[in-house]
Amino acid sequence: MAALFRSSMKLRPATRLSAVRTLTTTPHLRAAEKPFFPDEPTAPKLATAIPGPKNKAAAEKLDKVFDVRSLNMLTDYTKSTGNYIADLDGNVLLDVYAQIASIPVGYNNPHLRKVAESPEMITSLINRPALGNFPSHDWADILNTGILKAAPKGLNQVFTAMAGSDANETAYKAAFMYYRQRERGGPETEFTEEELETTMKNQSPGSPQLSIMSFKSAFHGRLFGSLSTTRSKPIHKLDIPAFDWPQAPFPALKYPLEEHAQENAQEEQRCLQETERLIKEWHNPVAAVIVEPIQSEGGDNHASPAFFRGLREITKRNNVLFIVDEVQTGVGATGKFWAHDHWNLETPPDMVTFSKKAQTAGYYYGNPALRPNKPYRQFNTWMGDPARALIFRGIIEEIERLNLVEHTAATGDYLFAGLERLAKQYPEHLQNLRGKGQGTFIAWDTPKRDEFVAKAKGVGVNIGGSGVSAVRLRPMLVFQKHHADILLESVEKIIKQL
Amino acid sequence: MAALFRSSMKLRPATRLSAVRTLTTTPHLRAAEKPFFPDEPTAPKLATAIPGPKNKAAAEKLDKVFDVRSLNMLTDYTKSTGNYIADLDGNVLLDVYAQIASIPVGYNNPHLRKVAESPEMITSLINRPALGNFPSHDWADILNTGILKAAPKGLNQVFTAMAGSDANETAYKAAFMYYRQRERGGPETEFTEEELETTMKNQSPGSPQLSIMSFKSAFHGRLFGSLSTTRSKPIHKLDIPAFDWPQAPFPALKYPLEEHAQENAQEEQRCLQETERLIKEWHNPVAAVIVEPIQSEGGDNHASPAFFRGLREITKRNNVLFIVDEVQTGVGATGKFWAHDHWNLETPPDMVTFSKKAQTAGYYYGNPALRPNKPYRQFNTWMGDPARALIFRGIIEEIERLNLVEHTAATGDYLFAGLERLAKQYPEHLQNLRGKGQGTFIAWDTPKRDEFVAKAKGVGVNIGGSGVSAVRLRPMLVFQKHHADILLESVEKIIKQL
Repeated sequence: MAALFRSSMKLRPATRLSAVRTLTTTPHLRAAEKPFFPDEPTAPKLATAIPGPKNKAAAEKLDKVFDVRSLNMLTDYTKSTGNYIADLDGNVLLDVYAQIASIPVGYNNPHLRKVAESPEMITSLINRPALGNFPSHDWADILNTGILKAAPKGLNQVFTAMAGSDANETAYKAAFMYYRQRERGGPETEFTEEELETTMKNQSPGSPQLSIMSFKSAFHGRLFGSLSTTRSKPIHKLDIPAFDWPQAPFPALKYPLEEHAQENAQEEQRCLQETERLIKEWHNPVAAVIVEPIQSEGGDNHASPAFFRGLREITKRNNVLFIVDEVQTGVGATGKFWAHDHWNLETPPDMVTFSKKAQTAGYYYGNPALRPNKPYRQFNTWMGDPARALIFRGIIEEIERLNLVEHTAATGDYLFAGLERLAKQYPEHLQNLRGKGQGTFIAWDTPKRDEFVAKAKGVGVNIGGSGVSAVRLRPMLVFQKHHADILLESVEKIIKQL
Repeated sequence: MAALFRSSMKLRPATRLSAVRTLTTTPHLRAAEKPFFPDEPTAPKLATAIPGPKNKAAAEKLDKVFDVRSLNMLTDYTKSTGNYIADLDGNVLLDVYAQIASIPVGYNNPHLRKVAESPEMITSLINRPALGNFPSHDWADILNTGILKAAPKGLNQVFTAMAGSDANETAYKAAFMYYRQRERGGPETEFTEEELETTMKNQSPGSPQLSIMSFKSAFHGRLFGSLSTTRSKPIHKLDIPAFDWPQAPFPALKYPLEEHAQENAQEEQRCLQETERLIKEWHNPVAAVIVEPIQSEGGDNHASPAFFRGLREITKRNNVLFIVDEVQTGVGATGKFWAHDHWNLETPPDMVTFSKKAQTAGYYYGNPALRPNKPYRQFNTWMGDPARALIFRGIIEEIERLNLVEHTAATGDYLFAGLERLAKQYPEHLQNLRGKGQGTFIAWDTPKRDEFVAKAKGVGVNIGGSGVSAVRLRPMLVFQKHHADILLESVEKIIKQL
């Protein structure tokens, strides 16, 4: 904190410092945990109304060249530390949104700083390779000590990508090529003249009318293939041409799950049956099913491990690939490194996609037959970015050093218990609390959601929503019990203002 | 060069140094140009057959986790300098392929090294923002002094992206939203209930059956929307579902252009007429036309400025947006910063997409109406990468400092004249030489193209092909006349081996 204020003093006249409002004076190290970031503030600080004057001026300037209508706040990353995000007006907020769930180990993490300053990083920044043609001499090592060290059980290979959307779309491409290869009779069968000709006209059979199945309320990205599987909100999809692909119903469960076990199981059974029916009957044959372990953008919708095991069985039985989209759930936030680790699958997913907290992207796979039968079928110039792969390696090292996955499981339990207490006290404002046993991947519904999220900054917290009515918590993996205490107090303060 | 060898000596026993073959002993500074990279080798060096034993061993290791069937060579970037690329066996090649045309200012460029070591870079690497929500306080400055400083004439805004494919696809999305907005009667008209409902089912009118028109042999990327506009080769498209979008004929010109002016003009006229007919008649209405200034992956196919001016007129007349894909042609290689600067358009393109030599990606636009009418319609978590935007700023600075666009125009003329001499001498091996007055963006056809490209490494040059029969030159902007001399000698050596 001292460091934080030393640097911010350069920008603010000393006289204004007295106006800074420290929001919580109670000792927040109750749980006696050693802070991961010794220099972190002990509480949020509010210096101005938000957005403050500097933010407003900067937003106006930026708007001239860059659409700012989805702007949340301009951020001073040089003054952000650990779980705290700083704006341009001296406000410092506890951040439980974390760049839409994409910051894993805290702002200005010292270990990542070392990675960023390393000679390997400099080389990869200034000599960006076309990875499919000219990978660096140490690319296998970077993968094996980084991205693949974290590979889900049963998957030992990776295709690297840039972000969640193209990670999913390249996985879809692999699925389509695999499907057609099987139809054709194997990798040795040559393409027909008709295929070669029709694909140049975007017509079947060369460009076949196959499909990827996703679930209602799912979010898998915003490019043309991924958007065709995204079913979150109209505003994500309107006016964009889409493929005629099927959507299965996602279970609409009742919370708390343990109190509605039987009817939830029935609902999941209904969805599984409908899923299998669609796979068998959809007019554009289904090459793969993609699913999020917890539907995130769609409103934090959960399903049980039994549902996902059922889905794995259905895909196996129908010769359809099973893709798990761990873009938002992956890398520790649910109390397991991968959220699908909660499911105890008998056979692993065919592909698992990742991005966000990995700070790089791609899909894992295990079956060598998922490599297309010829080179240059799954290819692009950059195929990812080694600079970002080095950052992921640093993140994995930091997660291991601090045991952050188990830590997040425990902190999540502590936070969830606190929210359960609040839910009893304010049942109208905290409905359908969910994410028990899922680390800090917690959400609830509230009738005045947009107002709730907007008021959060006024009590020193940066918080996000999902779906129509959910408040979603997406703290970093370095979120600790004393941060949970602040968050719980803040939630109560907001509720009292509604 | 001294530095290069100092470091490589650590890896190679001294006794092997004597085996290194310096390929050219003639003085290559004929043109008396001062080298941009004082430490660059004066000629390629061959230490082993390529691939050498270390490359083979490393490729085998990498193949276990990463598909290497499109591998060209494993690269030691720490030993690569300027125009020279080094492999793991001590071979150092003159690189006129440059990571598929994506390295602009040389390997290990000292100015980019400074950028990579800067505090701004470190911050942007370890605090990656969700740019649409939480841009950094200096994001407007980074854009204005970087990406936008290089903006094409008439375009003053940018949507940032990750790579060429998503740059094009987000431009397509902007075009579709713009088209439907105009149909609807403007940005204030609300979506209908029917649109909101149908888009969730991927059906029209919410997900409309509109199209993007591209040209035969075009390459615009490999994700689902961009691949639907890519018409380069079957292997790029097979087995992947595609949209029912139209392709216009691209002029099949005869080279040298100046000797076939009249028939080429007729061919271009024919293509323009067919383009307009397709726009008027295609069953899925055309929202935009996308075109490359020089079709690159498709075989280095050129058209005249008059053709592109005609295309601009047709798109204007038919209320269709005009997107220029400068992913491969942009950032100086054609002797102008943007290749479409050669056209003298009366009105600028509606959008210009960029990637590759920019080391970051996105689309430029000028018309504010191309911003969708509501926030979160054109959005994703990262929306690019500020770390790579900083690199592009460094590249622009280096281009300005060394006047590399004019330099490339002059070097290109010098190189082209040399190739014309060779074409006269070896007409069978250098057919349809093209790219005159287009900087170093030069290509020719040769009947034994694959053999030509494969043999290039044996004479110390890394060179690529495009299309079915073209050798394409894609040197960096720091390619100088003495490199051209080496390249010309090498081309002749290869021809003599065929």
